[in-house]
Amino acid sequence: MEPTRSGPPDPIIELLTTYNELNSSQVDQLLEVPSALEFMRYVRANRPFVVRGAAEDWSATRTWDIEILKELLDGQSVQVAVTPAGNADSPTRNNDGELVFVKPWEEQQPFSEFIDFISSQEKSSKREVSEVRYAQTQNDNLRNEYAALFSHVEKDIPWARIALQEEPEAINLWIGNSRSVTALHKDNYENIYVQITGEKHFTLLPPLTYACVAERELTPASYVRKHDGSLEIKKEGGDKVPFPTWNPDGGGHETKYSKYAQPLKVTLRKGDLLYLPALWYHKVSQSTNEEGICCAVNYWYNMEWGGSFYPLCNFARSAGISALNS
Amino acid sequence: MEPTRSGPPDPIIELLTTYNELNSSQVDQLLEVPSALEFMRYVRANRPFVVRGAAEDWSATRTWDIEILKELLDGQSVQVAVTPAGNADSPTRNNDGELVFVKPWEEQQPFSEFIDFISSQEKSSKREVSEVRYAQTQNDNLRNEYAALFSHVEKDIPWARIALQEEPEAINLWIGNSRSVTALHKDNYENIYVQITGEKHFTLLPPLTYACVAERELTPASYVRKHDGSLEIKKEGGDKVPFPTWNPDGGGHETKYSKYAQPLKVTLRKGDLLYLPALWYHKVSQSTNEEGICCAVNYWYNMEWGGSFYPLCNFARSAGISALNS
Repeated sequence: MEPTRSGPPDPIIELLTTYNELNSSQVDQLLEVPSALEFMRYVRANRPFVVRGAAEDWSATRTWDIEILKELLDGQSVQVAVTPAGNADSPTRNNDGELVFVKPWEEQQPFSEFIDFISSQEKSSKREVSEVRYAQTQNDNLRNEYAALFSHVEKDIPWARIALQEEPEAINLWIGNSRSVTALHKDNYENIYVQITGEKHFTLLPPLTYACVAERELTPASYVRKHDGSLEIKKEGGDKVPFPTWNPDGGGHETKYSKYAQPLKVTLRKGDLLYLPALWYHKVSQSTNEEGICCAVNYWYNMEWGGSFYPLCNFARSAGISALNS
Repeated sequence: MEPTRSGPPDPIIELLTTYNELNSSQVDQLLEVPSALEFMRYVRANRPFVVRGAAEDWSATRTWDIEILKELLDGQSVQVAVTPAGNADSPTRNNDGELVFVKPWEEQQPFSEFIDFISSQEKSSKREVSEVRYAQTQNDNLRNEYAALFSHVEKDIPWARIALQEEPEAINLWIGNSRSVTALHKDNYENIYVQITGEKHFTLLPPLTYACVAERELTPASYVRKHDGSLEIKKEGGDKVPFPTWNPDGGGHETKYSKYAQPLKVTLRKGDLLYLPALWYHKVSQSTNEEGICCAVNYWYNMEWGGSFYPLCNFARSAGISALNS
């Protein structure tokens, strides 16, 4: 038998277990939308919450179905992300077996064709599909590409605007079906996520779990549609993309620290609102309504870079890289 | 010449320089007291601010002088910290040359005797003194020992109470002269500090500078008054006390990281208010008014342990210990 070496405690394990001891493994549920001050307490703690039914009286939530959406967007084309398996913006093995960061093939499609495609795919009993489509341009699309729909949602989130002292940086619309999954990643934004129809299933991890998520430097790549209509992965030039490769719901790569992470899970249903704090890792899957679609809107507010939060999160990342490479 | 080894960047240096790049090296100055929401933004960022003259209309600020204080505390004895050099609660070498954590000798004195002592010491031209006295019991003394004075200050700080959703955990009165210095240390409280008369000179460091402050595990000790009236250091039993030994104003112990810290300096004058955020290191010296006294009041509110702030600060400490011992 080898002797057990007991050195000083590992600061990263201590960080993860201290966090878990001091914080709930559940997402807080508020009975109504918070005041700006109540919201700021959550921003301070960098902790998520859900408000059930917060958007149930929005015009979008009350009225949107395939027919109405087609009417509102009559004659318009929209940008659609196309992938073979619903894996846009995710670590994927290419034909050479290399794990690359693959972006979707993007093409313009008449909105009516797009939404009929996702709806009929969802309702079909076929397990195999040729491709998966997802309207997921995160470029403020609801105030641009989908401007015809914008008056059906709140133009901002008043308590967030007052607390954070700014207008939303981007408001994004998401339309897809249950084939699409958003891989674990994080954004530099305070995020207010509102479910319009269907369901979204979130798996959440706080920023300080950096050492758990098996970030790798991946070669950037994209799906490209070939002449026969099929999709193939093409590597791109440019810098490597640091991206998590762990799947907190099982599978994917692990690190020696992954087991100390305590993922929070929450499902948003029609009219529910989620505050997803800045830099939180999130993996998102979805279920559709009876028409076979899932639709959500999110409001991105710039995060605060001053203070101690960002430097400390970045430190957890750098120290995680050091510890995992040593 | 030895070759220069360039390894990966040191995460602790990156933490300190990132913080300095993203944050001012000055304490923010507000034009008036903040709203609860404005205050919460500072709590979120864990950043200090000063409001000049915030307490200038408090009865204490307007009326307290030695005569009034003697009148209000007529016949009362108070607990006084006694040290040879104004070094209460500080790392000090004992006669064996060992650096110990020394607490003051504490004794009850008639208030009038105490305040006459510090005032006449201040006004005397003698450089050498036999002892330094400081009323500095941090045990909610203004609502207990000094209850007769309490109605002269605000019973709490409304915007802090509303933001933090609690009454002050302790309200402390401090009376001393320029001989007393409070060594660099931190408290687990959100702290609102109000200058009543005289001046306090703060040197401040954010919690993430742990690796800069040369924390040492020191044997606890106390000054004890001998029969001849002189003071000697006596070691105590019990656990060692982890305490910073760096003096950010020069002198004291250094670590290889101390030079990356960017201390913030601010002087409070009569009526000024300082928000000193939780876990910030602070060193405090003082100047007196024309009567030879310096008097301040502070309000301690419990800090929030949930969220990511405390676990990340504790991680910076643990990782700092690892890095300094490796």
